[in-house]
Amino acid sequence: MESYAILRDLAVIILSAKFMAILAKKCKAPGVVGEILAGLIIGPLLLNIVQPGDFISKMAEIGVILIMFSAGLETNLKELKKSGPIALLIACAGVAVPLGGGLLLYLCMHGFPAPGTDGFFRGLFIGCIMTATSVGITVEALRELGFLKGRVGQTILSAAIIDDVIGIIVLTFVLGLRDPASNTLLVVGKTLLFLVISLAGGIVIYKLMKLVDARYPHTRRIPIIGLGLCFIMSYAAEKYFGIADITGAYVAGIILCNIRDAGYIDRKVSINSYMIFAPIFFVGIGLKTDLSGVDSSMLLFSVGFVLVALVSKVIGCGLMAKICRFHNLDCIKIGVGMMTRGEVALIITNKGLNMGVLDSSYFTAVILLIIVSSVSVPILLKLLYAKHPDPEVE
Amino acid sequence: MESYAILRDLAVIILSAKFMAILAKKCKAPGVVGEILAGLIIGPLLLNIVQPGDFISKMAEIGVILIMFSAGLETNLKELKKSGPIALLIACAGVAVPLGGGLLLYLCMHGFPAPGTDGFFRGLFIGCIMTATSVGITVEALRELGFLKGRVGQTILSAAIIDDVIGIIVLTFVLGLRDPASNTLLVVGKTLLFLVISLAGGIVIYKLMKLVDARYPHTRRIPIIGLGLCFIMSYAAEKYFGIADITGAYVAGIILCNIRDAGYIDRKVSINSYMIFAPIFFVGIGLKTDLSGVDSSMLLFSVGFVLVALVSKVIGCGLMAKICRFHNLDCIKIGVGMMTRGEVALIITNKGLNMGVLDSSYFTAVILLIIVSSVSVPILLKLLYAKHPDPEVE
Repeated sequence: MESYAILRDLAVIILSAKFMAILAKKCKAPGVVGEILAGLIIGPLLLNIVQPGDFISKMAEIGVILIMFSAGLETNLKELKKSGPIALLIACAGVAVPLGGGLLLYLCMHGFPAPGTDGFFRGLFIGCIMTATSVGITVEALRELGFLKGRVGQTILSAAIIDDVIGIIVLTFVLGLRDPASNTLLVVGKTLLFLVISLAGGIVIYKLMKLVDARYPHTRRIPIIGLGLCFIMSYAAEKYFGIADITGAYVAGIILCNIRDAGYIDRKVSINSYMIFAPIFFVGIGLKTDLSGVDSSMLLFSVGFVLVALVSKVIGCGLMAKICRFHNLDCIKIGVGMMTRGEVALIITNKGLNMGVLDSSYFTAVILLIIVSSVSVPILLKLLYAKHPDPEVE
Repeated sequence: MESYAILRDLAVIILSAKFMAILAKKCKAPGVVGEILAGLIIGPLLLNIVQPGDFISKMAEIGVILIMFSAGLETNLKELKKSGPIALLIACAGVAVPLGGGLLLYLCMHGFPAPGTDGFFRGLFIGCIMTATSVGITVEALRELGFLKGRVGQTILSAAIIDDVIGIIVLTFVLGLRDPASNTLLVVGKTLLFLVISLAGGIVIYKLMKLVDARYPHTRRIPIIGLGLCFIMSYAAEKYFGIADITGAYVAGIILCNIRDAGYIDRKVSINSYMIFAPIFFVGIGLKTDLSGVDSSMLLFSVGFVLVALVSKVIGCGLMAKICRFHNLDCIKIGVGMMTRGEVALIITNKGLNMGVLDSSYFTAVILLIIVSSVSVPILLKLLYAKHPDPEVE
């Protein structure tokens, strides 16, 4: 008879999340920041109105999966192929340098644990958190400035999308390392097998869905079948390949991103996401944030974490852009544009928390990174473009 | 780490529900019937792929609440007031006769337990299940025939909407009786208090929402605030007034049904509903259906239940229509049009199951009623209209 008690929690979560998101946007910060703050406020840390629990955490899991499915659906494969080669190089450097930087930071602060130990693994994980650029925040910042369609803007966009994929592959690889029963070869093998099966199965599913879509365009069955595929692939990825369920959701989105109703599916899924599930995910992070473990060394780590995450992206992406013969200031623009971190960093941290690799005090560092990067990047880009506007635009 | 296991259940539920709903519609039955059958097939009764559990049942609860919120939002208060008086009389008769009929049927089959006993209460509950007409199925049947806009069609529509409200008030009243600590006066008092507070608070909320809506039309905050209100009122109804949470959701919908973006909220809520939550509710009923308790007496009861439910509606509504001076054949049309039962009957049965008043074998009777009524009513209406078409239409 107590099932109605969750209704109160849901109401508090979605209303406080929306309120804080609006407030955040008024302060020129992304809405996501507001939603996390809402969780900090209503959770055990402050008001203690809502406590994290099994139901909330399962709803949050669905929330992340919907976000990643949506990101997959919004992938523009053609665009990706066109601006591909250079963006791929920039993305690779933009993953490799922060990964190394994060690992090095952790090792420096913890007396260089040897490869294979838990400490080393934790360091790798910290590196993983730093890899993925937040496509959403970057795109919004560039669009507001009016430079999204220029060469630099397009390169940033493509690289940000690609580094999500690479970041997730790296994460999958690192996660696989954790399993004591598996050796590295097995992890690589399983990851490759997943990609091969996804590719082969994906082509078949894509063709089938195209047929269904041609026959029943804009009907409810299209998004429902899409969502079903997303859930199945998320489950299968985790259950049979030891790959993160969010990877499965992302791949499901990519499989469907070229059918005619991809946008239609995305709209329906997004409504489910923003009305209920995504706020639960972001608020849930705030709910789970635990500052009892934060001491001076953790604070020191957080500051170092933010600095390394920001600087390593600029160095990695900027240098690679220079090698690809971009103008000096454009190199800096690309590096700065790639600095934003968002959902994916949180998702990876959450994964680490669920696996027991990290404790919840690490959220502090990640939340700090998201706030600092998403507030500073739009401002920095504005200054850089004022100094050296993109000649092709207008 | 096991939170991804629910993804498999969700995928199976939404895909099988959609598949069976399409199949049902191909057989001219309403989709709801297909979704319940999907639950029977994938549940413990047959294939045992998905088992009912805590998470599923909470998601199902949200599903019912969204359905009722949507029904409230779709209420046309003006239309209701216009065709009101006559429709109100017809609705009252259409609630009273089945309520009495259901009670009498149960009492006859169980040796007439005295008022105040558990048996009498169960009989009253059976009567409650018979009261509410399924607006959706009726409207769809009339719309397909092209007679929704005629006088008879409008009367059926209004009466079907009103009898939902009356049915839920009666249910609330009956549910309140169950609480041993409360006396009838307290139940009536609490119900009245809820209505008064809802009315007073509702007017304030309505005016506030109108202001917000005028300032931020068609923004995400509108449906989110609406949904938040729905959850709060559902929770408050159950927690503080001992009234069914679905009543709270319905009233929340009615409060917002006249703001300009009511349709906008309804569309967003409906997408959440049909993509995930509503299928879980209907499939969940199938999952919970337990035929182990069905013996010959239960079967006999089921047949009696269906007959009494159908005949009592025709008698109640038809006779009242006759008193209101409708043409003889139009009286029969009104009676037949009101025969359909759907979601609300299931919702009430589910409530009874959760409260321990009914056991799950009663779903058999209700499912039989839904299938028989929703298949036969469109056919009967077609025959009646062929014999005596509505002169005002065309």
